[in-house]
Amino acid sequence: MSNDYKRLNKDDAVVLLVDHQTGLISLVQDFSPNEFKNNVLALGDLAKFFGLPTILTTSFEQGPNGPLVPELKELFPDAPYIARPGQINAWDNEDFVKAIKATGRKQLIIAGVVTDVCVAFPTLSAIAEGYEVFVVTDASGTFNETVQQAAWARMSAAGAQLMNWFSVACELHRDWRNDIEGLGNLLSQRIPNYRNLMNSYAALK
Amino acid sequence: MSNDYKRLNKDDAVVLLVDHQTGLISLVQDFSPNEFKNNVLALGDLAKFFGLPTILTTSFEQGPNGPLVPELKELFPDAPYIARPGQINAWDNEDFVKAIKATGRKQLIIAGVVTDVCVAFPTLSAIAEGYEVFVVTDASGTFNETVQQAAWARMSAAGAQLMNWFSVACELHRDWRNDIEGLGNLLSQRIPNYRNLMNSYAALK
Amino acid sequence: MSNDYKRLNKDDAVVLLVDHQTGLISLVQDFSPNEFKNNVLALGDLAKFFGLPTILTTSFEQGPNGPLVPELKELFPDAPYIARPGQINAWDNEDFVKAIKATGRKQLIIAGVVTDVCVAFPTLSAIAEGYEVFVVTDASGTFNETVQQAAWARMSAAGAQLMNWFSVACELHRDWRNDIEGLGNLLSQRIPNYRNLMNSYAALK
Amino acid sequence: MSNDYKRLNKDDAVVLLVDHQTGLISLVQDFSPNEFKNNVLALGDLAKFFGLPTILTTSFEQGPNGPLVPELKELFPDAPYIARPGQINAWDNEDFVKAIKATGRKQLIIAGVVTDVCVAFPTLSAIAEGYEVFVVTDASGTFNETVQQAAWARMSAAGAQLMNWFSVACELHRDWRNDIEGLGNLLSQRIPNYRNLMNSYAALK
Amino acid sequence: MSNDYKRLNKDDAVVLLVDHQTGLISLVQDFSPNEFKNNVLALGDLAKFFGLPTILTTSFEQGPNGPLVPELKELFPDAPYIARPGQINAWDNEDFVKAIKATGRKQLIIAGVVTDVCVAFPTLSAIAEGYEVFVVTDASGTFNETVQQAAWARMSAAGAQLMNWFSVACELHRDWRNDIEGLGNLLSQRIPNYRNLMNSYAALK
Amino acid sequence: MSNDYKRLNKDDAVVLLVDHQTGLISLVQDFSPNEFKNNVLALGDLAKFFGLPTILTTSFEQGPNGPLVPELKELFPDAPYIARPGQINAWDNEDFVKAIKATGRKQLIIAGVVTDVCVAFPTLSAIAEGYEVFVVTDASGTFNETVQQAAWARMSAAGAQLMNWFSVACELHRDWRNDIEGLGNLLSQRIPNYRNLMNSYAALK
Amino acid sequence: MSNDYKRLNKDDAVVLLVDHQTGLISLVQDFSPNEFKNNVLALGDLAKFFGLPTILTTSFEQGPNGPLVPELKELFPDAPYIARPGQINAWDNEDFVKAIKATGRKQLIIAGVVTDVCVAFPTLSAIAEGYEVFVVTDASGTFNETVQQAAWARMSAAGAQLMNWFSVACELHRDWRNDIEGLGNLLSQRIPNYRNLMNSYAALK
Amino acid sequence: MSNDYKRLNKDDAVVLLVDHQTGLISLVQDFSPNEFKNNVLALGDLAKFFGLPTILTTSFEQGPNGPLVPELKELFPDAPYIARPGQINAWDNEDFVKAIKATGRKQLIIAGVVTDVCVAFPTLSAIAEGYEVFVVTDASGTFNETVQQAAWARMSAAGAQLMNWFSVACELHRDWRNDIEGLGNLLSQRIPNYRNLMNSYAALK
Repeated sequence: MSNDYKRLNKDDAVVLLVDHQTGLISLVQDFSPNEFKNNVLALGDLAKFFGLPTILTTSFEQGPNGPLVPELKELFPDAPYIARPGQINAWDNEDFVKAIKATGRKQLIIAGVVTDVCVAFPTLSAIAEGYEVFVVTDASGTFNETVQQAAWARMSAAGAQLMNWFSVACELHRDWRNDIEGLGNLLSQRIPNYRNLMNSYAALK
Repeated sequence: MSNDYKRLNKDDAVVLLVDHQTGLISLVQDFSPNEFKNNVLALGDLAKFFGLPTILTTSFEQGPNGPLVPELKELFPDAPYIARPGQINAWDNEDFVKAIKATGRKQLIIAGVVTDVCVAFPTLSAIAEGYEVFVVTDASGTFNETVQQAAWARMSAAGAQLMNWFSVACELHRDWRNDIEGLGNLLSQRIPNYRNLMNSYAALK
Repeated sequence: MSNDYKRLNKDDAVVLLVDHQTGLISLVQDFSPNEFKNNVLALGDLAKFFGLPTILTTSFEQGPNGPLVPELKELFPDAPYIARPGQINAWDNEDFVKAIKATGRKQLIIAGVVTDVCVAFPTLSAIAEGYEVFVVTDASGTFNETVQQAAWARMSAAGAQLMNWFSVACELHRDWRNDIEGLGNLLSQRIPNYRNLMNSYAALK
Repeated sequence: MSNDYKRLNKDDAVVLLVDHQTGLISLVQDFSPNEFKNNVLALGDLAKFFGLPTILTTSFEQGPNGPLVPELKELFPDAPYIARPGQINAWDNEDFVKAIKATGRKQLIIAGVVTDVCVAFPTLSAIAEGYEVFVVTDASGTFNETVQQAAWARMSAAGAQLMNWFSVACELHRDWRNDIEGLGNLLSQRIPNYRNLMNSYAALK
Repeated sequence: MSNDYKRLNKDDAVVLLVDHQTGLISLVQDFSPNEFKNNVLALGDLAKFFGLPTILTTSFEQGPNGPLVPELKELFPDAPYIARPGQINAWDNEDFVKAIKATGRKQLIIAGVVTDVCVAFPTLSAIAEGYEVFVVTDASGTFNETVQQAAWARMSAAGAQLMNWFSVACELHRDWRNDIEGLGNLLSQRIPNYRNLMNSYAALK
Repeated sequence: MSNDYKRLNKDDAVVLLVDHQTGLISLVQDFSPNEFKNNVLALGDLAKFFGLPTILTTSFEQGPNGPLVPELKELFPDAPYIARPGQINAWDNEDFVKAIKATGRKQLIIAGVVTDVCVAFPTLSAIAEGYEVFVVTDASGTFNETVQQAAWARMSAAGAQLMNWFSVACELHRDWRNDIEGLGNLLSQRIPNYRNLMNSYAALK
Repeated sequence: MSNDYKRLNKDDAVVLLVDHQTGLISLVQDFSPNEFKNNVLALGDLAKFFGLPTILTTSFEQGPNGPLVPELKELFPDAPYIARPGQINAWDNEDFVKAIKATGRKQLIIAGVVTDVCVAFPTLSAIAEGYEVFVVTDASGTFNETVQQAAWARMSAAGAQLMNWFSVACELHRDWRNDIEGLGNLLSQRIPNYRNLMNSYAALK
Repeated sequence: MSNDYKRLNKDDAVVLLVDHQTGLISLVQDFSPNEFKNNVLALGDLAKFFGLPTILTTSFEQGPNGPLVPELKELFPDAPYIARPGQINAWDNEDFVKAIKATGRKQLIIAGVVTDVCVAFPTLSAIAEGYEVFVVTDASGTFNETVQQAAWARMSAAGAQLMNWFSVACELHRDWRNDIEGLGNLLSQRIPNYRNLMNSYAALK
């Protein structure tokens, strides 16, 4: 294992959103519904903010799994959208992998439902093919914390970087001066205590 | 103690929002910031939806406590707004009590920061004066769960009804047929799993 | 408050199952899904075992709330089944109250989804009308433990008896000798550690 | 409700140990097995230390419930021992109630397995007959913390005093000078941190 | 039970600090050591700040229980100091009760170690004699949360007010204008997030 | 360490169920009894569904450890069944290892009671002999979460894959189209929220 | 990293008990006092049972750290006993290392107070010198769970095996037939639920 | 990976305090405010005590992030103080790295707010450049425990040593005899239970 810092680079990263469907999300209990929704939308916001290519994929939207949550659809109307006909591991779907390869990027930022399957499987497949994978742990949900911890351990042992949406945003941004207002706005929408700091400040300055 | 069901009535209820200020909220740790924000705004939404008279009060907005959170200001631009000059218990402020009395209503729905002081004190004062008080426990925050539990016990022992924003909304609404779409909309904005149910349903019907 | 022990009597008790619907249950997060399912079905089992009149009610089964869970439908094919047209508090529905009155019984065993609304409201209404109400806390679910605790406090303060399905079964049964095998069977199906004790015993005796 | 302090008096108290059987204890999960064993034996120790009349009762020792734990049998070889033929609520067993009445005492210190049934039922029955009941919460176990909390609430609402073995010991002892070494010894056996304090002290004095 | 708000009045309140000794505190595990120390010292600070008569009592300081924590000794060098020769319930010690009566006050603010004994017993005794008792729950510690909850329930059921040091301070102070800087200083020393708010503010104004 | 994705293959996997005995299971406290039973049976179901060779082993069934839980016996009536005469590590039993080798498979899916011994020891032995080992963490139980975490860390550090029964099922199935109804049925039996989604869907389509 | 299973061998293992002193143990809060005492004594029992050379060491017994807990002194009256004059890392004390080397053994089973220092430092030193180190996590205590988790991660990353006393006993024993009664007795003393199984069994066979 | 023990050496270590600012700290919820303040100041104390070069850095002190907490400013009035103009990763700031290089030291002790960004990023950068990095986990705070655990896993996988302030102090000190009183004093200020031990001891010796 080399000591190189696997550092997110906004010119080399692509975002993969896997199976954030209205039915499947009812299986998630390692986050409260509000926390989870906020984290997923924050990841959507940052993908948009940094202009990262984003790929959506779903599994059986016509059945009980339900459609992709409308907020993500609206956020990425033009993103590649792969409705998998049956493959559980999105990496087994050629169109999904092709869409990634078409971006020419080697850093995968991934989140999904459920963590132990829809996130873990493509993460392990992608690492095996030489990609750097950054798992957004707080935008990925599953049945309970025991399952969460086992899935994290499996992915981390295989070389995945465990991150959270906020650290992804900060690692991509690098320097506040690249867009102070833009990043501030993003954080203000998704981190209420940060918003409060900004409002306290605004009232005084 | 009579056995009468103290039941919220939208024609007899008034909402009191006490000290939801940008600085003070940073003291709250018995809810995650996102949960708390969502609950407070849900309470604001329902006050609006049911057209309940709503009274805002704050403590030292010019200092470290910070201004009232802007979302509440915007939601209730014309509500009585009592910036208390120093009274910790809002009930000690004549203008606050006058504003309540002006509504002619006897049911107080109260929430605030912090639970053990800004909520508990006026709750206890109002009960002593014969009001029925409904504490919105999940829109009221404090330092930690130990303090929360002690404050709840004190208020409950004095006769306060411990509720949550969702049960307040439902007890006020009484019957879905009074406005199916309106209530559905309110819930959809604040309860992600309910929104998911609605979106799953919409995709299928 | 009299000191009389409010004790369940199988000749005076009726079971009310409120809104255990496939959609609404996805809102429940104060129990794991498996625990909750097991508890609800255990309550169904015991109602059947003791031959208690049982009343089912639901809210908007055609919409996102979903149908009553099929297991309950199958367990009580002939039970009064009140599909409420809109009343949130089942007690506001005349047919529901009539069905209870038709049993001539004064002890209500109630469970439902969600605790703070579908259980708490009829509980408070029934107590106000002189019924003894026994809330089956572990067959009633809601959004999270904070809401659960507030709802329990409200109902307990109003005089409801907080119970669990196992204590309901035992208080109704009174004496093992009334049906040793029957009760043993019930417990074996729903309490894995009790089943293990029975199987260890069977292997040795 | 009178304001009188219901205070344990070693000349008026009797200890009731209900169904601490080797099989039933495997159902207990609201305490770790070591904590629970230590608490039950501490209660046994203190009953012995204060010379309190103690009554043992069990339910179906020959079946899966298993025999009374041997440590309690050895501690109280001459205590009334009521093997109930079927009554779930020990108070429904005449011999059990007679054994209590034979002591002429009106304060009942009770613990057992499981809290919501074997403790709660006789507690509620005894209060209804005018006894003062002191529940030893940490020597009484049940399925999980949710069930524990509901059972505590039911008993507390009916007038039971919720205590723990240590406060029972201290309320009975009243004054260390009644037997400094005796109480010290008791605490040292059951509270490791207290034993450590004593050993640190012994090393220095 | 009257509906009167039992409200702390700084002219009628006395503070009782029971057995905060260096050895006994090692038994406390329902708070982390730092939280507990901070809460106890905050209570000391506020007693000083409001000039409340304060009474110290200890149990066997020469033995393993250890001396009163030096910080409290230094804070109240002239306070009545009752080293109890053996009574576990401080109320059984005549000098302790005399010291309280000498103040002529009827509101007792009490904290100590351990909650279920050193706090609960004098609380129950004092209520029985007509005092209003305010338990400072977060400056009172015991073995674990189960014991804490049982002790709180026992005291609350007997009429004690469950509070925390912060709500005690605020209820005594009534109005910030009585001493803005004084109270601000007190809070700043003991509530790091409040201190941070003040420092952020100071940097900007 | 190679980067190869150790991916379950239903043609190369064998399931090992170690010591799920009626007595030993009473030691498990890192899962609630209902969760644990459901997880173990789900693992049994999936082994059956995928037609995986399955090997059962037990330790001293005639003594206090108790017999294998009957449900597993019934599920695998013809499976190799190794009643170990004394070896704690099943890998030390020649018949057990022979049974594995007879399958010609190199991927071991293992679960058992208790995790730190009956699962960890054969896992470590098998890895040392070149097998790929997949630990089904949620069908393996032990004394408490501290022991669980240490055991997981030991196995993960040695190269075991930490999984849960659901991810095992999904990794084996690969593509829903291999048997949509079969997998759906399996999930519906063991994941109540998934069953609810399916029932909501069935009611609407 | 080789794939060899680092397996405890009773002919190559030595037990190191570091700083289990009466004062220092009052710092431990990641286990309840009863759990911790039981675990430490269980480790002592097993060292005795397997006849493992055992080495005791302490730090400043004359001061506030207090003497070694008497139970360990009595269990190992003839063990090498190194009272370190000041070295925090026991490995920096020549006598301690000499005592280990004198045993000629290469597997170190270590436990102590506090985990992050008294256990972690000699663990890391010993690994660096080529020893195999087995940390008994549940007989090692520290300030809180956050510190525990960081210390475990540091030691595991360096190659230490994280174990618990029960898995240590089982890995050393290898086969029940080596001494069925002896091991049964050991477990019965320290695992109440196992003792219950044995007593249930004894009552029936 | 070599087996060398990465051991702190007070002649080769430098302390980095990153963004402990009055505003940012209000984002921290994985520690209670009092615990966190105590841990951060303890780290400051030990840096001072061991005379370690210490480097302070902040991000946008003029805005909502707020100024560095005054206690740290006062503790290190002459330390290099790098107010970063925008770089999120302090390692991207040349002055910061220069200040480190100017010390000639290769062991970095780092803490900051928030863990997943302000600590993790420079940690990963420094390891990539060959430094040994020791993360003071309990003086580094972030949004919640899920984020904390992911950030720890990422840093640990990259080779960082996860420590706590107490183990840092002990590893640097090596031998109590280097300054018994000095270290004792440090611990007494920040570990209340240790202070209690010292005071108990002082009272007796």
